[in-house]
Amino acid sequence: MKLAESILKKDRRALARLITLVENDSKEAIEALRILHSHTGNAHIIGITGPPGGGKSTVVDRLAKELRSRNKTVGIVAVDPTSPFTGGALLGDRIRMSELSTDKDVFIRSMGTRGALGGVARATADVVKLLDAFGKDMILIETVGTGQAEVDVVKIAHTTIIITMPGLGDDIQTIKAGIMEIGDIFVVNKADREGTDRRVMELEAMLELGQMSSSWKPPVLKTIARDGEGIIELLDAAESHYKWLKDSGLLSERGVERSRDELFQIIGEKIEKAVVDKVDRQEMDDLSRRIANREIDPYTAANELLARIGLEEKK
Amino acid sequence: MKLAESILKKDRRALARLITLVENDSKEAIEALRILHSHTGNAHIIGITGPPGGGKSTVVDRLAKELRSRNKTVGIVAVDPTSPFTGGALLGDRIRMSELSTDKDVFIRSMGTRGALGGVARATADVVKLLDAFGKDMILIETVGTGQAEVDVVKIAHTTIIITMPGLGDDIQTIKAGIMEIGDIFVVNKADREGTDRRVMELEAMLELGQMSSSWKPPVLKTIARDGEGIIELLDAAESHYKWLKDSGLLSERGVERSRDELFQIIGEKIEKAVVDKVDRQEMDDLSRRIANREIDPYTAANELLARIGLEEKK
Repeated sequence: MKLAESILKKDRRALARLITLVENDSKEAIEALRILHSHTGNAHIIGITGPPGGGKSTVVDRLAKELRSRNKTVGIVAVDPTSPFTGGALLGDRIRMSELSTDKDVFIRSMGTRGALGGVARATADVVKLLDAFGKDMILIETVGTGQAEVDVVKIAHTTIIITMPGLGDDIQTIKAGIMEIGDIFVVNKADREGTDRRVMELEAMLELGQMSSSWKPPVLKTIARDGEGIIELLDAAESHYKWLKDSGLLSERGVERSRDELFQIIGEKIEKAVVDKVDRQEMDDLSRRIANREIDPYTAANELLARIGLEEKK
Repeated sequence: MKLAESILKKDRRALARLITLVENDSKEAIEALRILHSHTGNAHIIGITGPPGGGKSTVVDRLAKELRSRNKTVGIVAVDPTSPFTGGALLGDRIRMSELSTDKDVFIRSMGTRGALGGVARATADVVKLLDAFGKDMILIETVGTGQAEVDVVKIAHTTIIITMPGLGDDIQTIKAGIMEIGDIFVVNKADREGTDRRVMELEAMLELGQMSSSWKPPVLKTIARDGEGIIELLDAAESHYKWLKDSGLLSERGVERSRDELFQIIGEKIEKAVVDKVDRQEMDDLSRRIANREIDPYTAANELLARIGLEEKK
């Protein structure tokens, strides 16, 4: 399989092309992912999320630069699950303008929801796999907000960094609601602004409340990403977290869990295709019409269809 | 089936209990939904969404009161897809405090994501069905924000109202990104504030740009929901939209589409259950571990499992 081989030979153009194929759910992409699977599992994957306006892109930019100065290669995936259209591209463009874009050891890609049939989290996971197989040492996944889709995307990561800033109104509430549980490291960016210490204290208090029985205590760090301040400490914390994951056995444990989820998802997709293939289109239309006309209920209709393809429900 | 019968006899406690069963994905709930299906299709379902802070709850409250003064019965479903924990309940509590709660012809329910295995949109659709079968004339679905989950929830509705307000910063961008396409009626609430006319013009300009070939032109209305201003016009617009859906044949066309989606979803869930039942747990664990260890790729593993249950992939 040529594209997969080119990836292993670190051909950047092949990588870009294969990512597009992944986004388009092409058969070729699946074939490549199949081959490349055994070459994955080496990258440290970091998810970066938080309310809009916190400076996530700047943090990502600075982290990438710091990684390069440590001679590590970097992949950046900027994901905008809220925008089916241009958001992803815009996000990417903004990053592409930075000086990182000229460094051949930094690969940057933005993704929207378009073309991701299995959901943006699924497509992101596959793109991260490609970057991993390509040999990137660290992969940064940046999302635009804190919705459920963002949480799903970030769950791919080994280490999740939640970025906030002082005085973002009620964003602490937003964090509380959805993503507090998934943060491994918390960052108060723009830490030269008023309210920084208060925000740090709020976060620490909340972490105290939500403390799980884990031996990892999420640190709350201050950064001024614009000036590069606090970035070294942030990267060190991320690496400490990765080391903790490895030493505690959690890295491999979570890997097995993720593999199980992936297996279920692939099975689901395959069966769905099998059903679509086996069921007559006209019959599907007729049944849908009868359901809409309240002549048959959808559960009975589903059983009828399943019986047809030999997957009858046991009583 | 007793619960289903009680619903048809307008037993409110049976309704509340059945909704809980739906949220818990119980078998009893499916059996009731199956029976009740033929009694649905009479309610006008309205989705209400928009950026936080726009006053959606107040609009919903006022709409419900106006409906009551027109002698219509009302169901309200407040959905918070961002909060697996308390958000949904909080939202509901806020509404429950209003005077509506003492009116036995208004049924109010709040939902979080908890317990909704098929996703919050799926659970909401089932709850709306129950309210429909119960005999509610109009069902208002209120969501907290404008994420993908909210969009999915609102897609259940016949008529979608997008609520915004003057001076909400860049929320116009948020609307542009995700939900502009699904709005049938746009509302600028808090219309006594500065910037109202500008916001109305922005919305109208955007609607002009995105104009589809539909004969329905989404109106942009002003309300001051706190004082009840503009609510009559808003409800009239919603009813005009429903009439337009009926007259144009779109109501039944979309009903068929929704039935098809539902059928697919039920089939998917049933097959997933069948797979989980048929596959040995130990085998699943072993395969997941081998995938995580990069001994086998997930696609090959999926094929092995599918072959075992007689759903081999055709080459």
